[in-house]
Amino acid sequence: MIVILKESYKEEELIKFVEWLKDNEIDVHKSIGQNKVVLGLVGDTSSLDLDLIKAKEIVEDAKRVLEPYKKANRKFHPEDTVIDINGVKIGAGNVTLIAGPCSVESEEQICTIAESVKKSGASMLRGGAYKPRTSPYSFQGMGADGIDMLIKAKKQTGLPLVSEIMDISHIDEFKDVDVIQVGARNMQNFELLKELGRGNKPVLLKRGLANTIEELLMSAEYIMSGGNSKVILCERGIRTFETATRNTFDVSAIPYIKEKSHLPVIADPSHATGIAKMVPPVAMASVASGVDGLLIEVHNDPSHALCDGLQSLTPKAFDDLSKVIDKIKPYRYINASEGDN
Amino acid sequence: MIVILKESYKEEELIKFVEWLKDNEIDVHKSIGQNKVVLGLVGDTSSLDLDLIKAKEIVEDAKRVLEPYKKANRKFHPEDTVIDINGVKIGAGNVTLIAGPCSVESEEQICTIAESVKKSGASMLRGGAYKPRTSPYSFQGMGADGIDMLIKAKKQTGLPLVSEIMDISHIDEFKDVDVIQVGARNMQNFELLKELGRGNKPVLLKRGLANTIEELLMSAEYIMSGGNSKVILCERGIRTFETATRNTFDVSAIPYIKEKSHLPVIADPSHATGIAKMVPPVAMASVASGVDGLLIEVHNDPSHALCDGLQSLTPKAFDDLSKVIDKIKPYRYINASEGDN
Amino acid sequence: MIVILKESYKEEELIKFVEWLKDNEIDVHKSIGQNKVVLGLVGDTSSLDLDLIKAKEIVEDAKRVLEPYKKANRKFHPEDTVIDINGVKIGAGNVTLIAGPCSVESEEQICTIAESVKKSGASMLRGGAYKPRTSPYSFQGMGADGIDMLIKAKKQTGLPLVSEIMDISHIDEFKDVDVIQVGARNMQNFELLKELGRGNKPVLLKRGLANTIEELLMSAEYIMSGGNSKVILCERGIRTFETATRNTFDVSAIPYIKEKSHLPVIADPSHATGIAKMVPPVAMASVASGVDGLLIEVHNDPSHALCDGLQSLTPKAFDDLSKVIDKIKPYRYINASEGDN
Amino acid sequence: MIVILKESYKEEELIKFVEWLKDNEIDVHKSIGQNKVVLGLVGDTSSLDLDLIKAKEIVEDAKRVLEPYKKANRKFHPEDTVIDINGVKIGAGNVTLIAGPCSVESEEQICTIAESVKKSGASMLRGGAYKPRTSPYSFQGMGADGIDMLIKAKKQTGLPLVSEIMDISHIDEFKDVDVIQVGARNMQNFELLKELGRGNKPVLLKRGLANTIEELLMSAEYIMSGGNSKVILCERGIRTFETATRNTFDVSAIPYIKEKSHLPVIADPSHATGIAKMVPPVAMASVASGVDGLLIEVHNDPSHALCDGLQSLTPKAFDDLSKVIDKIKPYRYINASEGDN
Repeated sequence: MIVILKESYKEEELIKFVEWLKDNEIDVHKSIGQNKVVLGLVGDTSSLDLDLIKAKEIVEDAKRVLEPYKKANRKFHPEDTVIDINGVKIGAGNVTLIAGPCSVESEEQICTIAESVKKSGASMLRGGAYKPRTSPYSFQGMGADGIDMLIKAKKQTGLPLVSEIMDISHIDEFKDVDVIQVGARNMQNFELLKELGRGNKPVLLKRGLANTIEELLMSAEYIMSGGNSKVILCERGIRTFETATRNTFDVSAIPYIKEKSHLPVIADPSHATGIAKMVPPVAMASVASGVDGLLIEVHNDPSHALCDGLQSLTPKAFDDLSKVIDKIKPYRYINASEGDN
Repeated sequence: MIVILKESYKEEELIKFVEWLKDNEIDVHKSIGQNKVVLGLVGDTSSLDLDLIKAKEIVEDAKRVLEPYKKANRKFHPEDTVIDINGVKIGAGNVTLIAGPCSVESEEQICTIAESVKKSGASMLRGGAYKPRTSPYSFQGMGADGIDMLIKAKKQTGLPLVSEIMDISHIDEFKDVDVIQVGARNMQNFELLKELGRGNKPVLLKRGLANTIEELLMSAEYIMSGGNSKVILCERGIRTFETATRNTFDVSAIPYIKEKSHLPVIADPSHATGIAKMVPPVAMASVASGVDGLLIEVHNDPSHALCDGLQSLTPKAFDDLSKVIDKIKPYRYINASEGDN
Repeated sequence: MIVILKESYKEEELIKFVEWLKDNEIDVHKSIGQNKVVLGLVGDTSSLDLDLIKAKEIVEDAKRVLEPYKKANRKFHPEDTVIDINGVKIGAGNVTLIAGPCSVESEEQICTIAESVKKSGASMLRGGAYKPRTSPYSFQGMGADGIDMLIKAKKQTGLPLVSEIMDISHIDEFKDVDVIQVGARNMQNFELLKELGRGNKPVLLKRGLANTIEELLMSAEYIMSGGNSKVILCERGIRTFETATRNTFDVSAIPYIKEKSHLPVIADPSHATGIAKMVPPVAMASVASGVDGLLIEVHNDPSHALCDGLQSLTPKAFDDLSKVIDKIKPYRYINASEGDN
Repeated sequence: MIVILKESYKEEELIKFVEWLKDNEIDVHKSIGQNKVVLGLVGDTSSLDLDLIKAKEIVEDAKRVLEPYKKANRKFHPEDTVIDINGVKIGAGNVTLIAGPCSVESEEQICTIAESVKKSGASMLRGGAYKPRTSPYSFQGMGADGIDMLIKAKKQTGLPLVSEIMDISHIDEFKDVDVIQVGARNMQNFELLKELGRGNKPVLLKRGLANTIEELLMSAEYIMSGGNSKVILCERGIRTFETATRNTFDVSAIPYIKEKSHLPVIADPSHATGIAKMVPPVAMASVASGVDGLLIEVHNDPSHALCDGLQSLTPKAFDDLSKVIDKIKPYRYINASEGDN
């Protein structure tokens, strides 16, 4: 971290500041310029709060040189992290397809869709039992019953499960769910992240609607610093002024995160666009840019789905998409991050 | 709700759709235009999911005529809601000052600040015990001990307390806290909102960084539909491309929300701007535009605060601000919402 | 257009409104619902100003059913527009590579780069002579001399030219430039658009940093309604809260625009990301999602470029990218827009 | 400017870099830290392009310590700039009211409104002759005839005129217009700014929809560096995800700009909100936060205005607003920028 002192700083204040830094195990290298004194802070500066430093009386400005995340940082872990979910490997150079309905609606529905997406190349099943809905008057998901239905679909097809958790108190219900999803609205639900960090179940962490990539990595850091390093990151669109699509899919986040972090990165084109027709091109774009997996909503009868039918693919459309992805895959962007930058 | 049918719609599909609506206690008025058929949906359309309607095969587009919130809607509750917090009334035409440090740091600190802000005109004390921090390596607050210290400050000064909750599991610790704050990052933590809706403690609900006013009112609706109508809304800045201030304070949200809803609206200029110097002008702007209260960070020693020192006022600056607010207050905008629009 | 009347509307006001619409050659179909009267407006509603309608005393709300653009609308021109630029066809199912430096710096520089990108598969040369710079103290481009150098590079290589215009008064200097680029900052410089609409030179119209897709198409409409239908649209990233990349590249805009409009769509990953390393993956994503061409900054010596060196590819990197694009191209998304939706 | 070198930098590259800087009249102070070498750049760094520096091979990162604007910077011009427009002084501690219709529609209309707003306290008249409209099919303004009508209203009332210019070629028509307005969409029309910088007529420069405060000040710098220091800045809302109001009015921009710059700052609540009812509270908020003037749309018959009727105040509403502003004015925020920070 580089700290620029105010021209009017007082020596005794500087001494106090340097002592405080040393208490935090940070060494200080002072360099005196023509009209500015600049401090170089050396040590584990990720534990320093940038705003706290800037609030100090004697400080004019400060800037990080290293990223504030450590465990998620590729600099300290150059090789890609591969997460094994009952034999399905994410991050190992493949494009893992995770498909299923927005909401579990019945045992028949989820089993039918599971069979279908498996045939089309999906290697994991997604389905919502607890649903975050803007309105209290909208369908809120089937809850624990939905989880049970997912488990039946898993038994029938062998597909590992991904489902979203909405509160710590539901965590026991997820013991047979293979990957716990933290939705965009909970990306900074820090108590939930800490709890998941204490476990060892893989976590699919979605980027929040208004969160930067750095904040996403800091949320991953919450889980990882607790001891659980199995974090899968997910780009699912951010909120911008554009209303043509539900959100704006930030495709450059995929190669950018993969450059900065060793964690696997997947994409959710269904929630990003909110329009079924836009899902295939955005999915294909994600693959080309180097994504490790895709989360795709598939419903056997989108126009009667209990939620998010607008953005669900039919089984046929998913099957077509899966085939074209196989063709693009060999030529996708591979992040050659070793060495430079 | 107005529903526009596709030109190619089939009569039997329309019959099914109308039946489904009737099952949802919605009447349908059909009007046949030159090249479009338009349905007018009559009944409690707040229970209808707009995206669900749009996903129907026969539907080209749909538009709400009424807002999707009911209990928070001024149309159904024209007079202002006044919330009484141990004798402090919010929403009754006053500007309630709620002040205190970002974090509780020690008993002495919180009691000193409480005494000071009380003298300067604050009628409630704020202080964070649980702190949502972007980094797991930053100070996370004093937790339950912090709550105890707040309670001591309350005993000493008589000021009612506002403090932020971060997880349902902490709810028992808040029994002597007078107003439970739901932070911006938890505005759509729906399980938490439902839980608070089952209680009867006043809730201070902050607008999320990327949430619209309508979504804020829908989150209030979660609490109110559970039975707890004591909701105070808080504008605290939204995330935009501008980085000069930490967030962009949406001052027009104050009169806009007050027009649409009967709930009290307060403003948090400290988090909105992130810069102590910008707090007074933004606070004054909020008062002029008709706000019911202000949430202001005050710290006796901002440059040594454990968090958010950059945006904290000194007790002296808060005292100056309080005085000028008293002068502007009589001339502030009063929403004359009855009658028109 | 659907117009919802206020419940309190007066019959004589409605009669006046209907007459005013008839004067504008719009027919009105009135349908009386249970508590709302809805008007269906039939005719060329693109000439109606939605806000003007909403401002009428008797109108509660109004909503377009048809898009406000006509000449750019695929509904009225289902087949793709192909633009022929000295034999280079954009929009005909190929991916046209347009490459070159941000700024023309010398005759030698531009000719060297032109030769190089031609060899790597570029079929057009880009180069800035007039440069829009945030600071008046930054290099402003070589102006007319830069245009002359571009023309020499064109003579030497045969590559048609694309260069940005910044003011109507420069238009004569562009007579040997094959495609006139309107930059993001000028997307709503309506006088310039009108002037270009009076000519017949192809226009490359970039999306503004804060402009919606609909606004981009309305700006195309300015040019087309003047008589010039040779418009190429360009997605180049929008401004959001994310600062990791210079802008946020809206990849879904590519298939979305191609669904709504028959005009060719190209992408500019260099300006979208601002980081050379991010250019290849975003370029590849664009191709996968169905783009008609790419605008790529290439500089023989990026670290000594006079502008935008950070985002320029070396000739070698461009050559590598060109090769991988050739491989992805056959599998890219093709908008099958005929028939449905 | 602080420049952090890559750890792998080569000495000969550094020597070349330092020489290049010296050619630009920048001195370099080198300080060697434990693992990073930091350069302090001393001199007129506003002429350096930050991205250019960052693009250099040996540079890891760079950060400005001083703002990139000079002539607009309060640091080099501590006292407020006061602009005298035919006796009306902006920036001298008053709140100047500039009112009038969005578009000039007829001589009678503009003269009637001019008389009315003058009576209510306006000291300048605004009116659009050239109108930037999203659609080519919308009313484009009366052009030169509109200017003539404005001049008649000026003769009749004595009110100085503000009107928007859309292209350099119209500049002669503005010789009797007292203040030339540059609209939000033209804030970075640099050729226009340069042309206005060569003149000496006061310029009202509106912030662009997606432009930062720093960019606004850089656009002012374009005008000022050309020799014309009479620039009035205008906050008029920025584009965000919120659609309740047309734009999001950034009230904190007012005190922030006044802290950073000596130029007068006015606000345009009409365009910021797009809703007549929201104009008074946002105007009042602007006054409380220290604005130097207000630009308000007033129309004698808003529901029949040819543009922007939705946001226009009636003469009566403007009169009421003017009165309440008089009351708030004495207590508004005054930027005490001398000395600290």
